Order: sequence, then C-alpha cells, then structure tokens
Amino acid sequence: MTAKARPTHADVLAAARRIEGHVHRTPVLVSRTLDELLGARFHFKCENLQRSGAFKMRGATNAVRSLPERVRVVATHSSGNHGAALALAAAQAGRRAVVVVPRDARPSKQAAIERYGAQIVSCEPTLSARETTLEDVVARTGATFVPPYDDPRIVAGAGTAALELLAEHPDLDQIWVPVGGGGLAAGTVVASAGRTAVMLAEPALACDAKASLESGILQAALPPRTIADGLRTALGRLNFDILKRARTPVALASEDAIESWTERIAAIMKIVVEPSAAVTLAAIAEQPGIAAGKVGVVLTGGNV
Amino acid sequence: MTAKARPTHADVLAAARRIEGHVHRTPVLVSRTLDELLGARFHFKCENLQRSGAFKMRGATNAVRSLPERVRVVATHSSGNHGAALALAAAQAGRRAVVVVPRDARPSKQAAIERYGAQIVSCEPTLSARETTLEDVVARTGATFVPPYDDPRIVAGAGTAALELLAEHPDLDQIWVPVGGGGLAAGTVVASAGRTAVMLAEPALACDAKASLESGILQAALPPRTIADGLRTALGRLNFDILKRARTPVALASEDAIESWTERIAAIMKIVVEPSAAVTLAAIAEQPGIAAGKVGVVLTGGNV
Repeated sequence: MTAKARPTHADVLAAARRIEGHVHRTPVLVSRTLDELLGARFHFKCENLQRSGAFKMRGATNAVRSLPERVRVVATHSSGNHGAALALAAAQAGRRAVVVVPRDARPSKQAAIERYGAQIVSCEPTLSARETTLEDVVARTGATFVPPYDDPRIVAGAGTAALELLAEHPDLDQIWVPVGGGGLAAGTVVASAGRTAVMLAEPALACDAKASLESGILQAALPPRTIADGLRTALGRLNFDILKRARTPVALASEDAIESWTERIAAIMKIVVEPSAAVTLAAIAEQPGIAAGKVGVVLTGGNV
Repeated sequence: MTAKARPTHADVLAAARRIEGHVHRTPVLVSRTLDELLGARFHFKCENLQRSGAFKMRGATNAVRSLPERVRVVATHSSGNHGAALALAAAQAGRRAVVVVPRDARPSKQAAIERYGAQIVSCEPTLSARETTLEDVVARTGATFVPPYDDPRIVAGAGTAALELLAEHPDLDQIWVPVGGGGLAAGTVVASAGRTAVMLAEPALACDAKASLESGILQAALPPRTIADGLRTALGRLNFDILKRARTPVALASEDAIESWTERIAAIMKIVVEPSAAVTLAAIAEQPGIAAGKVGVVLTGGNV
C-alpha cells in the first residue's frame, strides 16, 4: 500500500487484526430517552471510552504497527487527540514518539501527550510553523512522520470502529460520524462497503467538508471558531477523494446545538464526550427526520 | 421467600433470569491509568450506564416482576435513585407507581421520577413523614410497598451486577461496592458465594455500617452530611445480618477524596459517576495496598 493509495475493505480488516489487543473493543450503548427525543433507534459506539480517550488510538496503533521493525521513532504535529494517541500507541509498541505541539494547545492535551511518554516540541500556532518544526524533528531524529488523518493506515485504523459496530449490528440503516480531517469519515465509508448509509455531521462554522463535497472541489479550512476543536481542520485530499466517490452527505450543526448536546449526552447517557463528538446528535436534532430507523453513531472522544 | 428471609445464591440467579431484557447488561471497563495510580488491576462494572442511571434498576425490576399479576400499583419513598428506578421498572411492566418524595429532594431526581411516568406525592423531609405519607398512599391506592434496600428481592436483584461481573471475570480477587442501606453490599456477598472477597467502602461521615459490623450491633444513621447522598441511610436489618455473617470489611473515605475521585473518574474514564459511586476508589486511594490483584468495582450510579 503506497502512501496515498485509497485503503480497501481488506485494509480495514487487516487493521482490525493488527490493533487487536492493543486498543479497546469499546462498548455499544443504547438510550431509550435519546431514542424518544430524536425519533430513531440509536446505537452509540463509545470511542470516548477508547484508550487515550478517542478513536484516534485506532489509526495511530495501526500506523505504528504497520512500520518496519527498524523504525524506532515516530513523530507528528497535533494540538489534540492524535498526539496523545500516537504517544500511547508508540509507547505500547516500544517506540519513541516526538509530538510537535503549538504553544496555544490546551495544557490538558499536552499533559496527556507527556503522560504517555512522548517528547513534546513546542512551536508557533500556525500550520507552517507546525510543518517546518516537524521537518526539523524528522531531520534531527530520523523519526517517521505519522500524519493525523490523511493517510491510508490512519483511515483503515479509524474504520475499525464502524467494523466492530457493524459486526454487532449488521442491520443498521445509517452510521453517523463527525467530519474534520475526514480520517474517520473515510474509514467508515470503506468499512461499511456500500452496505450501510454513512452520514457525516460538521459544525456550521467549519463547513468546509460540506462545501467541498457539494462543489466537488476541495475547500480550505475556515477560521477556527467552532468549539468542536477536533473538527476545525480541512478535509484531507485522500479522504476527500474517498468521500466524493461515495457521495457521502454532510449535515450541519449550530454551535448552540453542539454545546447543548455535549451536556445532554453527559446528563442522559452518563458519559463524557467532547464537543466534537456531540456534533452528530446536534445535527440530527436540528434536522428532524434525517436520522431514521436503526442508527449507529460513533461518539468519537471524551477529552475535555 | 418470605418478606425478610435471607436471599440465597439461587435467588440471585432467579433474579438474573427475571430481569433479563428489562435492564442493561452493563459494560465492564478497564483503565491502565487508574491501575497505575492505585496499584491493582481494576475491572469496573458500570452501573452508572444502567437504565435509570443506577444499579437500583436491578432490584426494582426484580421486585416488580416478582409481584403477582393482580398487583397494579407499587409505591415507595425515595429522594433519589430508587424512586426513579421503581418508576421505570413499573412503567416497563405496565404497572403504576407512586413515589413519596421529601420536599428537599433534588429537582433533577424528581424530574426523572416524573419522566418515567410515576405519580409524586410530596412530604416533609423526615423519615417519619415519609413513612406516614407512604402508609397513607398504600391505604388510599392499594399499592404494594417496594422498599428501597432492606428486602430480599431488592438484595437478590442488586446481586446480579456482581453475578455478571464474575461471569466475565471469575478470577477476581476482590469486589468493591459502596455501602449505604446495604442492598448492593448484601447482594454482592450473596452473589459471590464466599468465592470472592467482598470489600465495602463508606464515607467517614456516614460510617454507621463500619460501626455496626465492627461492634456487632446495628447503629443508627449519622447526620446526613456526606456529599455521597446515596449512602446517608443506615444499614437495613436484613442486610446487616447478611454482612455480619460474612464478616465483610468496611473501608472509609474522606469527603475530600470522594469529591476528588468523582472528578478523576470522569477525567480519566470519561464516564459520569455520582459521588456515592466514587467512594470505593476514594477509600482505596486513602488506604494504599488495601486493593490488590485483580479487583472488581461496581460503579453504582451516574445521576448528578
């Protein structure tokens, strides 16, 4: 599999075998209260309960364990969940990790990266500073770069969440996931293999994926204004390609709804989700009838 | 089984069959971070993810479904989780429920009781007012009283949480549960049938169970000062009898530790627990070494 080849269903199956025992098989929860509020029969795949607190652990583990044995150091840039996931995945695999973190990243996210044993290299909070600092780290340490989302190993790893959900509930009518860089979205499309409708949700303030998929032209990221900080990034090119071919629809959610559903999920389901993970239910609530039948939802993370 | 006969292991098995499909088989979560912090290999039975948000659903469902078909109305007094659980269990079984609620109960708890379709009757916030109001309800409606904890059907139902945990992890060295009225504590002792050590945890500000079990004489409740509001009540007589015979030890937790572990469980495990459910980890943290080996913990509720 070359660096930017589209991953196949077989790649998702291979990722599932590769990461087994190194990531949690997360529980699937149901809630009659939410079913009644939103008018569908929901099955929530709880990746907020995943190791490192997010689905990112799946792709990071798949990527790290796909590398040749001689690769001893991995590196990435991240202000959030990918950095922590790569740090933990590397530590579990006996590798070192270096994570380039913008200075304005939340202290709690930095603490998680350090707790999992990775080295942090700070940089200015711009994409170009992140990239040049990473290049410098790679040149200096010989580290192998593991990208956060636009990578077939990351996509295939992310797809294993839907694979597990569909193994338990093969008769789902829809699977909803939030879309940011599109690794989970593309992975879910590949995992569902055209047998289940994949539905994406995105903050209205970060609607580049919707604009990209509806115009057919990849759009740049919008200013980082949404509280769903995991979804601020633009769609990756590989992921755009996968989602465009599948004609995957995108529903938008307002900031008010994202905030309110983050709290309601905690109050009703007794689990902690980050705003990025509440965008699906927020979009469903704002577009009555869009979710119908037996509906899977990947709750992506709980790091707040 | 007469009203106050000690339930047997067979009664817990019968309860498990009776409530199957009406309550969730809750997930068992693990956390390496907590294992490292507290020095044992923990397995958390997540009854905060149970229907109605607490393990109380098990006993209430077992009690309601043990009643003769001709009983159409059940009643109880409760300021918390038992009332909501009985309301939901009754509604699921096509019965009416009346819950006597002291005026100072939290509005959120009252709202849950009403959302599940029960009728609320308010009373003054004293035990005697609760009892006389309940007697009045029973006389007026012909309702059957379902006690909150000191009842063999409630104990057997509560024991099904440990039964499920032991079915998945038969090699646990200890099972920790908090103790208030003692329904869960007694049920766990009966379910473990002497094969697994049952360890109780209690707020130091509500240490009547420890005092009762160490003196051999049932002690009255202490003033209701602990934030672990589900554990303020005194041990029931039936439950005291079961725990005394089993010589079940009780570890205490300070208020500071209960508050801090309520937050840490949310931050680390990404699940919402109420303070009463954090008392076990608080007690374990304050008595290093007391939890060792492979340790089960029932996280009892998430209604905050």
